[in-house]
Amino acid sequence: MERTYIKDLKDKIGEEVTISGWVDIRRDHGKLIFLDLRDRTGKVQMVALPNNPESIELASKVRPEWVIEVRGKVNARPERMIKAGVLNGDLEIEMLSGSVLCEAAELPFELGTEVNLDTYLDYMPLTLRAEKAHAVFKVQATIIHAFRNFLVGEGFTEFQAPKLIGEDAEGGANSFSVEYFGHTAHLAQSPQLYKQIMVGVFERVFSTGNVYRAEKHSTTRHLNEYTSLDIEMGFIKDHTDIMNMENRILAHIMKELREKCADEFKLFGTEIPEVPEKIPALKLREAQEIIKKETGEDCTKEPDLEPAHERFLCEYAKKTWNSDFIFVTHFPLSKRPFYTHEDETDPGYVRGADLLFRGVEITTLAQRIHQYDKLVSSMESKGLDPEKFRYYLQAFKYGMPPHGGFGIGLERVTAKLLGLENVKQAALFPRDLNRIDNLLSHGE
Amino acid sequence: MERTYIKDLKDKIGEEVTISGWVDIRRDHGKLIFLDLRDRTGKVQMVALPNNPESIELASKVRPEWVIEVRGKVNARPERMIKAGVLNGDLEIEMLSGSVLCEAAELPFELGTEVNLDTYLDYMPLTLRAEKAHAVFKVQATIIHAFRNFLVGEGFTEFQAPKLIGEDAEGGANSFSVEYFGHTAHLAQSPQLYKQIMVGVFERVFSTGNVYRAEKHSTTRHLNEYTSLDIEMGFIKDHTDIMNMENRILAHIMKELREKCADEFKLFGTEIPEVPEKIPALKLREAQEIIKKETGEDCTKEPDLEPAHERFLCEYAKKTWNSDFIFVTHFPLSKRPFYTHEDETDPGYVRGADLLFRGVEITTLAQRIHQYDKLVSSMESKGLDPEKFRYYLQAFKYGMPPHGGFGIGLERVTAKLLGLENVKQAALFPRDLNRIDNLLSHGE
Repeated sequence: MERTYIKDLKDKIGEEVTISGWVDIRRDHGKLIFLDLRDRTGKVQMVALPNNPESIELASKVRPEWVIEVRGKVNARPERMIKAGVLNGDLEIEMLSGSVLCEAAELPFELGTEVNLDTYLDYMPLTLRAEKAHAVFKVQATIIHAFRNFLVGEGFTEFQAPKLIGEDAEGGANSFSVEYFGHTAHLAQSPQLYKQIMVGVFERVFSTGNVYRAEKHSTTRHLNEYTSLDIEMGFIKDHTDIMNMENRILAHIMKELREKCADEFKLFGTEIPEVPEKIPALKLREAQEIIKKETGEDCTKEPDLEPAHERFLCEYAKKTWNSDFIFVTHFPLSKRPFYTHEDETDPGYVRGADLLFRGVEITTLAQRIHQYDKLVSSMESKGLDPEKFRYYLQAFKYGMPPHGGFGIGLERVTAKLLGLENVKQAALFPRDLNRIDNLLSHGE
Repeated sequence: MERTYIKDLKDKIGEEVTISGWVDIRRDHGKLIFLDLRDRTGKVQMVALPNNPESIELASKVRPEWVIEVRGKVNARPERMIKAGVLNGDLEIEMLSGSVLCEAAELPFELGTEVNLDTYLDYMPLTLRAEKAHAVFKVQATIIHAFRNFLVGEGFTEFQAPKLIGEDAEGGANSFSVEYFGHTAHLAQSPQLYKQIMVGVFERVFSTGNVYRAEKHSTTRHLNEYTSLDIEMGFIKDHTDIMNMENRILAHIMKELREKCADEFKLFGTEIPEVPEKIPALKLREAQEIIKKETGEDCTKEPDLEPAHERFLCEYAKKTWNSDFIFVTHFPLSKRPFYTHEDETDPGYVRGADLLFRGVEITTLAQRIHQYDKLVSSMESKGLDPEKFRYYLQAFKYGMPPHGGFGIGLERVTAKLLGLENVKQAALFPRDLNRIDNLLSHGE
């Protein structure tokens, strides 16, 4: 008999079905044994009745995480047993027969138990099966899918950026080294140079893939390997075109999350944010004046925002414009990468912005320099050797439109949306200083 | 005035428009100057007329790959000048005014010139802009997008597989080493172990990302870094469920290519293959008997197929079943990875298949072992230490359904579809023994 998915049982009341999945919970009431079965679509309560020895035998021996196939009858629950608002809260499967597809060892702890982060990570092949972890990665898959589909609709072309690179544009301090046939290669910290090259080919491009930061500190918002959602678009007027595009991308992602992941957000007690038609924007200097006026702290001489100030600005945007998002534009050029475009109408400051969301920066976007001579001068002024960038520079030597773009860290945005404490809870399978799946023993 | 894309000019005859793009070709006829302008949507011929000095001045100074913005009038061409079947073959832009967005240096060769592979790779930021290279990567983007969308529709969940790994399941010989905070990590050769773990979470999963092979030989069909389209699905009957799924995925991809990339295939003079309702399948031993009977060559004792035999079988499938695809099933278990499931009804042979397409293998698919004890035994029989796989083994310890899957190399399938001689022509930006963008100087 063909398998019925658990979410479809509601249309089969009175019928016989075959369902498969993992035993989620087992409750032995002596004569009756109840099993909750879990498949990728949901959970359902099953009961083995004393008048059916075969089902009692099966229900007696199985334990949590055993994988079983069950033939059963879909019965409506009596009125007083109905659990409203719960999938299959109004029905129950009467077990008729079944078989074990796979046994499981005794679990080290009950699935869904709150465990500390190290234990969660040590047992990830198991802990990921718990409802909340499952929800995190369903949300993440929905975000990346919505991101790509929106961009394809806007005429963007996806490309596959290499991760093995020669020189590192951002400087070598934070890059991992790879032994490459007698040479030293590096793992890319971003697809930046490649996406600019690809603007010369397709005008509008995006890429989704892993990037690497060999940062030696461990924080709740950094990962050594993460997924970067990157776009770059040509023929822009200035950075505001990129801000508008990001605004629309975010609106689309939130719309998709509302349609597909409402239950997952409910589980975390967090709201899917409304994205304003136009996300409010302040120049860094304006933001600093507001911080000074409202908090008394003078950060007007700083080239960047402290984490506490990012949090303040998010609260300020929520209070003032009812927005969970705020752009801060016009950071000083001197602190930004060599390819960043200056705003000539505001010399010394960039045509670019950081996007803050619920207290943290989730994007840095900017227009890039598209003229060859200016780009070479900028490299030289930063002490970089243009000869090392000769491959990349070809794109500019042979004609590039004004362009710009941004990257979003998929894990970070997933964590912020769901209110997770640590970005590692939004990463499959997080690498850090001390861990690649298993803990690393240092000094070995 | 808002930018009009070149593909939309056909609806604007008689109107004034602003278009932007790269100068593709410039033809100076003395009094008249013709420019072909190229944007991401197509090309159009523009003309600067002597009665308009501004447009003559612009057209006089620009050269191929300069980026310009032009205001012009869309004129229908006289009947005798119409080029039928060509985008904008029935219209022409009369240049009114315009400006240079970016100059370009003189090109080392005309765009679209046939150059040898090394020159193509040396100048990739430029050579990718040629019509054929552009087409290759549009086809590639269409394939990966179709792959993902089909799977999402089938209830698969995307996940982000790590590329930085500790131990290498496939053996260390072909893996790149990464210096990882005083430890040696590796670059993953496939997401195999992670996608199996994720079957325990979502039943059906896919992942698209880079994988790495430190192969020291250079062939026309291998890359050191490539994009792997990977799926894994649970609750299967056996390998035929995976064959059916791949069959349907391929049918969907070809449908999308027919809708979106017909022009690109025309450019290469290649056909988008029809995917049979059911791709023909032979056991390896049956295939070997056919080869023996038809060619006289006896390979019936071999554990695998020679490239020449793969080509023969593809021709045979085309001739016999009019199929560009053929599955060869039941390879000997001894040659396959430790996680491969045996067909108990045919002892010593796998529940799995290779898919051959136009002369080469494009997939190896198989059911995997899902029982913990069997998996540990299989590791031990291959001389592997189960302790090194303890993270992965948790998935099996705590209950796994029967499952299996496959991977397809995106670059290889793109190359085969378009009839490219070398898989490097389908890779952005190919890494090999001698090259990471620029040629590497060995012995330095």
